Amino acid sequence: MTTSHADLPLVLDRLTGPPLASQLTGQLRDAVTSGVLLAGERLPSTRELAATLGVSRTVVTAAYAQLFAEGWLEGRHGSGTYVSDVAPALPCLSASGTPVPASTSPPAPDSDLIEMRAGIPWAAGIDTAMWRRAWRHAGTRVPSFFPGPYGLPELRGVLADYLRRGRGIAVGPDHLLVTRGVAHGLAELSAALVEPGDRVGVEEPGYPSAREVFRRAGAEVVPCRVDADGVVPDELPGDLRLLYTTPAHQYPLGGRLPVARRQALTSWARATGAVIAEDDYDSEFRYDVAPLPALYSMDPEVVVYLGTTSKTLTPALGVGWLAASPALVRLLAQAREKVSDRVPEPVQHALLAMLASGDLERHIRRMRLEYARRRAALMALPGLRGDSAGMHVVLELRRPAADFVAGAAERGVGLSTVDRFFAGDPVINAVILGYGAISGSQVRRAVTALSPLLPA
Amino acid sequence: MTTSHADLPLVLDRLTGPPLASQLTGQLRDAVTSGVLLAGERLPSTRELAATLGVSRTVVTAAYAQLFAEGWLEGRHGSGTYVSDVAPALPCLSASGTPVPASTSPPAPDSDLIEMRAGIPWAAGIDTAMWRRAWRHAGTRVPSFFPGPYGLPELRGVLADYLRRGRGIAVGPDHLLVTRGVAHGLAELSAALVEPGDRVGVEEPGYPSAREVFRRAGAEVVPCRVDADGVVPDELPGDLRLLYTTPAHQYPLGGRLPVARRQALTSWARATGAVIAEDDYDSEFRYDVAPLPALYSMDPEVVVYLGTTSKTLTPALGVGWLAASPALVRLLAQAREKVSDRVPEPVQHALLAMLASGDLERHIRRMRLEYARRRAALMALPGLRGDSAGMHVVLELRRPAADFVAGAAERGVGLSTVDRFFAGDPVINAVILGYGAISGSQVRRAVTALSPLLPA
Repeated sequence: MTTSHADLPLVLDRLTGPPLASQLTGQLRDAVTSGVLLAGERLPSTRELAATLGVSRTVVTAAYAQLFAEGWLEGRHGSGTYVSDVAPALPCLSASGTPVPASTSPPAPDSDLIEMRAGIPWAAGIDTAMWRRAWRHAGTRVPSFFPGPYGLPELRGVLADYLRRGRGIAVGPDHLLVTRGVAHGLAELSAALVEPGDRVGVEEPGYPSAREVFRRAGAEVVPCRVDADGVVPDELPGDLRLLYTTPAHQYPLGGRLPVARRQALTSWARATGAVIAEDDYDSEFRYDVAPLPALYSMDPEVVVYLGTTSKTLTPALGVGWLAASPALVRLLAQAREKVSDRVPEPVQHALLAMLASGDLERHIRRMRLEYARRRAALMALPGLRGDSAGMHVVLELRRPAADFVAGAAERGVGLSTVDRFFAGDPVINAVILGYGAISGSQVRRAVTALSPLLPA
Repeated sequence: MTTSHADLPLVLDRLTGPPLASQLTGQLRDAVTSGVLLAGERLPSTRELAATLGVSRTVVTAAYAQLFAEGWLEGRHGSGTYVSDVAPALPCLSASGTPVPASTSPPAPDSDLIEMRAGIPWAAGIDTAMWRRAWRHAGTRVPSFFPGPYGLPELRGVLADYLRRGRGIAVGPDHLLVTRGVAHGLAELSAALVEPGDRVGVEEPGYPSAREVFRRAGAEVVPCRVDADGVVPDELPGDLRLLYTTPAHQYPLGGRLPVARRQALTSWARATGAVIAEDDYDSEFRYDVAPLPALYSMDPEVVVYLGTTSKTLTPALGVGWLAASPALVRLLAQAREKVSDRVPEPVQHALLAMLASGDLERHIRRMRLEYARRRAALMALPGLRGDSAGMHVVLELRRPAADFVAGAAERGVGLSTVDRFFAGDPVINAVILGYGAISGSQVRRAVTALSPLLPA
């Protein structure tokens, strides 16, 4: 089934700015997930595409190699490069290509009810050999007499490399604090920076746990409006102590904060003295272009960067990181010691093993492909909202969202409205469709079940 | 070296109340650590001692068996039962009796400075085979899709057995919440029960992290006076929302709260509506008699019980538990979910493995013996204060404690005063001598170094 590819260069945007190979990779990925390139379709040779795009052949070769490695493309002996059959989701496979044995896999979510929860990754996609290796390594490390409050020095070093490589963030170990995840990092920031009565901004709609963490610290939580692009800097009050934001992929609406807003945001923080807590939510799972650089890189003096393994790996691991100025990192570590808080050392050793071996990055690449497939299948539903990233999409409705949730439940699909993401009255009538914790075939069944509920 | 044992029964107190065997076990242990029974000394036969004490021979046989198992006694073929050579501390051995290999042991605390910190257990005493087994097991368990806020059900079941067996606490899994340790349990109690401005009592002197946890929750921390027996119930104010206390072994002074005070404490809580947070600190490490039953057992409706592996195993593990009414456990779990907090599942699986195999209890028994030996060696210093339990003693001084700390530092011994345990002005002039994180030979060197600083 070889179809024409003559106009493929037209669907690729003009390529500007380095690195060209990643841009091309992302645009080809997007062409597949959006259905511009179909399974089985033959791609131009690297020579042809390079000539058409006016880029070096090395760029195209690198992009093809990446897409081969991720499974988007396949070679057929003697006949060129083809788009893999990526649309239908595969049964869950371990990294070795064998199905995950039932004896060690977690109980599958109830296959009768398809629960489309947001922010839950595919636990069954964790390669059992990788997991065993990581904990076997952790078991060889006898615990420290006096566990330090910063996290293991080796781990901070490896995390600095990981962030430099994966997110282009120039940090050294001194800028890093190992945390148990984003909410833990926010709690520690609050303990160090927020006095009772201080005003703290949270995106509206936004992450409910962030609001609760700030509320517990005695802060007055101030909802900050979000539109399709993310938080709106012009509307931010001038008296916030801290602002929690998700510029890579707004949670839950999915906007990707444009560069102009990012500049406005850091200027606002400089002018008002506020600290920005950047949750780099879903930066690892983009299916179109590479994520924008972290806000932290633009102005590390006013931004604190927060990352986690809760979405890339599992929330059951409970480990993440925070990047800030060395002085703030010291302050946070001292505050942590005062309450005898710590991140379990074996968990840190396991993460260290997964980072040092490249296992975690391989896992993220496999999951990126898996989620992109599920997303492509889900996009058959009309009216979906959100960036081409992450593990959920938002479906805006004309009829009341609660009615839709009830109708979906009757058809065996568990949904929730976006209401819980609002501190105030919800201004969007929408439901969340999460596809992280359900299989590809469940996604397709959900599409079939929900389609009759939607206008054509 | 067989010496007379004719008056051994005289040094044993009159035995009253069940279980007689544990009482006898404890008193014999005490006789060894206090030097009444010397290494190499022969004990009466079980028949003789039973007759002298007027107890059944089964009681004596059980006590001897326990002391054999713990290593206090040894048999010599055909010639009876002898006190082991327990006074000199052994070099650090793994459970298999072989020295811990340097490659896997943590960096030993600086052998030039003998740091006598309180509350730090002997990390080098962890049997490396046990540790490896536990994490290997954890690595075989793939994480849950939706980690629950209560902790793993299997772990809660095994913990209920452990608490019933070790502490006589009658709880089911529904009464238990897995925590990251005592401070974490207190933070969760605060989040659920304490409103900003509420008054929360903390023993004075007492655990500094508890004070900081309550302060962060917006509470007014009220110091509650402690004497040699522990907290003084008659002096407690009537308007506390919560009281934090350590009845098993007051931290740091070492009192063991007598039964009358325990009754007064629960009556006070019933009368005032306060909740008692019982930190069962050091109940595992008693070297004389068995610990008193937990306060929680006396009145589970007004007491919340808190336990941890931070002292029995290592603070680097970060796992503990909390026992309360099922309704309060539910409330705490719901509050935990709101901030996306959790205890890492692999850590729970590792603890489960160590509990289910009996490894943790074996480790505790070995450490009890090791700490008892160190304590016996340390008691050569005059003027030491504290119950025969735990991993530190308090040394009261006539001269300023800070001078003594400076003098000790000159002699290579790192000490701290009790000052940091006081919220207000310290009313005791004392230093803490911790022996958990130093070897037996370091204890003896510390005794030699400190003796010249003390009046004979």
